[in-house]
Amino acid sequence: MEKINVIKVGGGIVENPDSLSQLLTDFSQLSGHKILVHGGGRSATKIAASLGIKSQMVDGRRITDEQMLQVVTMVYGGLVNKNVVAGLQARGVNALGLTGADINIIRSHKRPLKCMTLDDGTNQMIDFGFVGDVEHVDGQMLSVLLQQGVVPVMAPLTHDGKGHLLNTNADTIASEVACALVPYFDVTLTFCFEKSGVLRNADDDSSVIPHITEDEFHQLTQSGIVVGGMIPKLENSFQAIHQGVRQVIITRTDHIDGQGGTIIE
Amino acid sequence: MEKINVIKVGGGIVENPDSLSQLLTDFSQLSGHKILVHGGGRSATKIAASLGIKSQMVDGRRITDEQMLQVVTMVYGGLVNKNVVAGLQARGVNALGLTGADINIIRSHKRPLKCMTLDDGTNQMIDFGFVGDVEHVDGQMLSVLLQQGVVPVMAPLTHDGKGHLLNTNADTIASEVACALVPYFDVTLTFCFEKSGVLRNADDDSSVIPHITEDEFHQLTQSGIVVGGMIPKLENSFQAIHQGVRQVIITRTDHIDGQGGTIIE
Repeated sequence: MEKINVIKVGGGIVENPDSLSQLLTDFSQLSGHKILVHGGGRSATKIAASLGIKSQMVDGRRITDEQMLQVVTMVYGGLVNKNVVAGLQARGVNALGLTGADINIIRSHKRPLKCMTLDDGTNQMIDFGFVGDVEHVDGQMLSVLLQQGVVPVMAPLTHDGKGHLLNTNADTIASEVACALVPYFDVTLTFCFEKSGVLRNADDDSSVIPHITEDEFHQLTQSGIVVGGMIPKLENSFQAIHQGVRQVIITRTDHIDGQGGTIIE
Repeated sequence: MEKINVIKVGGGIVENPDSLSQLLTDFSQLSGHKILVHGGGRSATKIAASLGIKSQMVDGRRITDEQMLQVVTMVYGGLVNKNVVAGLQARGVNALGLTGADINIIRSHKRPLKCMTLDDGTNQMIDFGFVGDVEHVDGQMLSVLLQQGVVPVMAPLTHDGKGHLLNTNADTIASEVACALVPYFDVTLTFCFEKSGVLRNADDDSSVIPHITEDEFHQLTQSGIVVGGMIPKLENSFQAIHQGVRQVIITRTDHIDGQGGTIIE
């Protein structure tokens, strides 16, 4: 079976022209089949603020109201995605920018209301707005494109099949895409972020844990070594492994070839 | 040879939710192979204004500076394009949003400085900024996608192959795409706009000229019956016919099946 790398990079790296340029060069040099999934992050918040749209947050989570959905559609689907595509084309990579709506690649449904306990201890039903939970990724169509030498560049947007775009977490898109490709490829999923991997000591970037099993993950969570946003990232990772992804790598954005990061198999 | 319809619609229709919805329904009901090319127009100007970016105009033409290029990339490539794609998917059309950068579909070069005589009679070298003149359309790749049942939805953006997106007139994109498909399909190109066709009397929408030859076009221009933006539209049309497009139709946006408009063959 042929190999494929599904690489997820955060919004921070694509906002800065220098780090974006380095990323695109590194990505263009990866051999074989590949997919780039990008976040958007702060640029959407910044442009929303310039347009006088306030980012609504509940308990640290962003609520995607109709105006914010328009902004993320512009910023993730347009500005970020198309600049990445043009930059990759300039480096000889036959990139194709996709949201989940394009060729119906990722179908999702609007997240149902969720009961959450807020910081003040009260419970509240929260409507996250136009946020999509993934239902189906068309791995076969992606596979056809990849076999034609096309390199998909995926924005964190999906659609519900009823005409609505939905905002979907880029980590989730990357792991769902990786899983959908398992019947067609030998899949490696790489999450790139600002640190060198899963760290034993959050303040020491040299304390990378080179390899984590699921049992170790539970121990690391219970002992408070793995906290915050790393928990869903690792949960996504183990879910991908259970669904047949060969390995997941968590590493720094300047190590998209996976060297030196944390490996989950 | 199989038939294809290349339909160009202006920015006005895609901005209004009701007219957009009607357009998408009409387009979804066209049988056979088809491509939708959309403009963006006023929504970009409006969003630019909200962001505090002024549209620079010289002699009625917009100058695309770097900030405006970012806005059109967001609005045409993101907001408009992806909403059209999601709306078509909801109507059973397997739409794929494309800028010229995606899979290198439309390569262009930045328009060189141009000497223009301004309204006050002086000559000036004008830099139109990030505006792309089309060099090459990959008709073969479009044809491969079309044969797979994919319906391309094209935003008025191209790229120079050096990492730069460029703003390109949607009428030009439609006619260049139509010409590039001539080796693969029997091509009809339809320009939809707010009037019923080429009018003998601009104030009378029932005065449509049903058929225009190239000689008649020159007479109509000389006699001042065809003026303004209709001249480049007809020039584009005859150029397409010379390059093998079977017919060009200029009609109202609610007649994308071509009925009742002006036919150029």
